[in-house]
Amino acid sequence: SSSSDLITATLFPGDGIGPEIAESVKEVFRTAEVPIQWEEHFVGTEVDPRTQSFLTWESLESVRRNKIGLKGPMATPIGKGHRSLNLTLRKELNLYANVRPCYSLPGYKTRYDDVNLITIRENTEGEYSGLEHQVVRGVVESIKIITRQASLRVAEYAFHYAKVHGRERVSAIHKANIMQKTDGLFLKCCREVAEKYPDIKYEEVVIDNCCMMLVKNPALFDVLVMPNLYGDIISDLCAGLIGGLGLTPSCNIGEGGIALAEAVHGSAPDIAGKNKANPTALLLSSVSMLRHLDLHDKADRIQNAILNTIAEGKYRTADLGGSSSTSDFTKAICDNL
Amino acid sequence: SSSSDLITATLFPGDGIGPEIAESVKEVFRTAEVPIQWEEHFVGTEVDPRTQSFLTWESLESVRRNKIGLKGPMATPIGKGHRSLNLTLRKELNLYANVRPCYSLPGYKTRYDDVNLITIRENTEGEYSGLEHQVVRGVVESIKIITRQASLRVAEYAFHYAKVHGRERVSAIHKANIMQKTDGLFLKCCREVAEKYPDIKYEEVVIDNCCMMLVKNPALFDVLVMPNLYGDIISDLCAGLIGGLGLTPSCNIGEGGIALAEAVHGSAPDIAGKNKANPTALLLSSVSMLRHLDLHDKADRIQNAILNTIAEGKYRTADLGGSSSTSDFTKAICDNL
Ligand SMILES: CC(C)[C@H](C(=O)O)[C@@H](O)C(=O)O
Ligand SMILES: CC(C)[C@H](C(=O)O)[C@@H](O)C(=O)O
Repeated sequence: SSSSDLITATLFPGDGIGPEIAESVKEVFRTAEVPIQWEEHFVGTEVDPRTQSFLTWESLESVRRNKIGLKGPMATPIGKGHRSLNLTLRKELNLYANVRPCYSLPGYKTRYDDVNLITIRENTEGEYSGLEHQVVRGVVESIKIITRQASLRVAEYAFHYAKVHGRERVSAIHKANIMQKTDGLFLKCCREVAEKYPDIKYEEVVIDNCCMMLVKNPALFDVLVMPNLYGDIISDLCAGLIGGLGLTPSCNIGEGGIALAEAVHGSAPDIAGKNKANPTALLLSSVSMLRHLDLHDKADRIQNAILNTIAEGKYRTADLGGSSSTSDFTKAICDNL
Repeated sequence: SSSSDLITATLFPGDGIGPEIAESVKEVFRTAEVPIQWEEHFVGTEVDPRTQSFLTWESLESVRRNKIGLKGPMATPIGKGHRSLNLTLRKELNLYANVRPCYSLPGYKTRYDDVNLITIRENTEGEYSGLEHQVVRGVVESIKIITRQASLRVAEYAFHYAKVHGRERVSAIHKANIMQKTDGLFLKCCREVAEKYPDIKYEEVVIDNCCMMLVKNPALFDVLVMPNLYGDIISDLCAGLIGGLGLTPSCNIGEGGIALAEAVHGSAPDIAGKNKANPTALLLSSVSMLRHLDLHDKADRIQNAILNTIAEGKYRTADLGGSSSTSDFTKAICDNL
């Protein structure tokens, strides 16, 4: 096929183990003949004044143009006068919903074998407003912002997602018994949207109780939608249930149809360049990306190959108790395609 | 012994199942000949203008005078113009540290059998400031307050607790990568206190990562100290690991040596008055109260009787899969004393 039939997607390999696991995705996509060509962008070596971060303006433009991208881990360089890379991406691209499917991997044993849920996190405001100051010496405050617009937008996304994916229930997670105005507004917006989806069950669960229920019986939940910080906390908790962030995909949805899939684990500098990293989270994120493009056949084929390889257990990376290299594990997946 | 040898403690039986489980504590204390006489206080039937809540001024005075108390569940009456009962107690009595031991109960199987940790929660400020307002229509904010004074006080309590109880490590839980000023100040205070306790290991763990580690391997943690909301979330998560809030004690420490132990589960109106409630959380909280009074012999005896009764498994309430009544379970504990 000529390159004009190809979809162009932005790829941020990222830092540390990022380039190795991105290589794994490229290899699997080549083998599966996915009609995608990558436009690669790397984190800059100095602050770009237009983004106030080490992310270049050109790399953001690339995602805006392609409307689709995949991102490896990015360690924010230490120092002052610039913004976190992850937060810059979320704000600049208006990535308002962070979607993290979390399901037990067949054959990979944890304490739970009945996890199958989706966390949908508001990704632009809440406790991440960046508004903080010292009131007097020894007294500081942070401001959490909840808006009707962002709450409706993420609630709408959650219910739409539930409907399209045949999910039965949406649970809104909150602490409105304490933060009546902010979390109260979030709930009010969820309720408004829920009314438009009479076929989907709707419930509200206080975050502390939600965490207790999740560790006791995660099968109680289906789709969870929540403000930013609760999403940060609960999505990591859920990842822990099935084995950790090395195994869970993530996809950020932005205004105008943008989707940026990403592995949310760290850049693991200790094993970087050693062909030891587990590419599963980035691979499963690339599957999320394909689904966003409606390339479901390719997505199914790749997802099955990943899950089968892990289930067979012959090739596993060290974090899963095996001794395979990144490239051997990747080759096993390609053989399973 | 004459009543002058007795320690007077305030007892709030609370609502719903509260009176039944409080009866269980009274019975166990009588049988174990604990030198305590109770001063009982009930939630009022109208708002007391001096406390702005349904808690009477006299009941707060009782705790202030006795400096020791035990509290069952209290459902805050619905309506406007008054404060939550739990929050009123915390604020009025300046209950600055909430201590929740959480350990696997021998013989009661959950997915985890290696839990043995203590969460210590700052209990007076943070996200519970009550400062919230609408900025413009559709935009609301909540203000989180962190002070040097409250952070030092709870950190000091946590390290002191670790030392006295022979614990090895204190982990400060935070989200200072996002809330650099507020959580940053909390961490700074923890570090200052840590320096005074060179024999106790100190570490800092981001809350999302902490939740993932807790569900993967709770044995990684020992004593955890954290701001208010994180404590609310993590203590419930930890309770879930060992079976739920029906099994975990809690004790609130206030200025001037006040201690108010409490069951943190709900008032379970559906089973109230039916002799079905599990009194374990309130009983174990009463043990925390005895330890605070340095009545360790009585505390050990009662704690062992509770744990042995649960371990034997013959008498268990319905929430633990048994069919015993509250009074039969209580009698079994008394027989085990
Ligand atoms: C690295 C950090 C700023 C980030 C967050 O808090 O959102 C991470 O935990 C995540 O979940 O993507
Ligand atoms: C009932 C509620 C206000 C309370 C809290 O949020 O602190 C409860 O969850 C607790 O942990 O005691």
